[in-house]
Amino acid sequence: MSNALLLVLSAPSGCGKTTIVNRVMHNLPGLVFSVSHTTRQPRPGEVNGVHYHFVEGAVFSGIRNQQPTGFLEWAEVHGNMYGTSVEEVDKHQRAGCDVILDIDVQGAAQVRLRANPVTVFIAPPSLVELERRLRGRATENETTIAVRLNNARKELACVGAYDYLIVNDRLEDAVESLRSILIAERCRQRRAPDGQPMQWGV
Amino acid sequence: MSNALLLVLSAPSGCGKTTIVNRVMHNLPGLVFSVSHTTRQPRPGEVNGVHYHFVEGAVFSGIRNQQPTGFLEWAEVHGNMYGTSVEEVDKHQRAGCDVILDIDVQGAAQVRLRANPVTVFIAPPSLVELERRLRGRATENETTIAVRLNNARKELACVGAYDYLIVNDRLEDAVESLRSILIAERCRQRRAPDGQPMQWGV
Repeated sequence: MSNALLLVLSAPSGCGKTTIVNRVMHNLPGLVFSVSHTTRQPRPGEVNGVHYHFVEGAVFSGIRNQQPTGFLEWAEVHGNMYGTSVEEVDKHQRAGCDVILDIDVQGAAQVRLRANPVTVFIAPPSLVELERRLRGRATENETTIAVRLNNARKELACVGAYDYLIVNDRLEDAVESLRSILIAERCRQRRAPDGQPMQWGV
Repeated sequence: MSNALLLVLSAPSGCGKTTIVNRVMHNLPGLVFSVSHTTRQPRPGEVNGVHYHFVEGAVFSGIRNQQPTGFLEWAEVHGNMYGTSVEEVDKHQRAGCDVILDIDVQGAAQVRLRANPVTVFIAPPSLVELERRLRGRATENETTIAVRLNNARKELACVGAYDYLIVNDRLEDAVESLRSILIAERCRQRRAPDGQPMQWGV
């Protein structure tokens, strides 16, 4: 059994999750992002195996039907399938790397049923501030902003199911919090499956 | 109920605990050391209320008999009494500070029965390395070294009861680990007494 961590990270759109994770990965070794499988077409610039594993619907279904492996979590969004394969996570953990999954609250709930992840939710200081940030991007139209705010409200209702909550008020603090959670969890003593704590190897 | 942490820190003598804690306290605000009560006489340079609360035996017994307050943990060592009072911890937590208790494995076990501490054990990389460090101090005679190593062996048997284990191999890493544990625990979502998670305040 690998001691590598499985970190589930969720955040409403506009909370700065991508910036925070990229900064933490830049200065903390031993972390990798899990690459999801998807049935949607690659967009310009997207590379197979880097941004996604782009697969046919039949391949996706094949993985989904593998038991007990297959997908740790999967979902259909706008007619396309997305999923995190067990093999994708396992291969990194076997290599001793902690794996980060960037998934929403429904995906996180699925992973909790199958694995023992460390779960982190990144929240905005308030919905008012989130709206201000989304408008600040200038690339979002009114409809998109309304959809994102509505999704944020729904996702924030699930904060209590997460192990850790990072409120992204100051970016530097949020980066340090996520980095600290990873370092701390590496020091955390896991219980063995029989409930017995593990011993220091004298 | 205060959200401030109660951090229990244990380590065999010679593991670098004092150096690690002092460095963390130097660069992380909101941390205080709990000052213990003791019935022993002050040594030259020791200040009442700073190094210990120096009290008479009757005062110590009076605190010990207070229920349900009194001492979080206490012990008799070489005929002198030592204890951490509930009031000492409470006053700092009410002020919003996280409180660090520097106590041994027996003290930690007592605190776990009375409170909900975050517990951290600092271990040497090995007993061989601990012996090398104790000899390196040059102030310890052979008898003292033998006693310290024997105590270390006993204390290390209790590592599994702690939430976190920091192996002090490189000092800088150990300092960062303890600092990270504190920052992470400040982000950790506590369960309310009824078992319900707390909610993000929208």
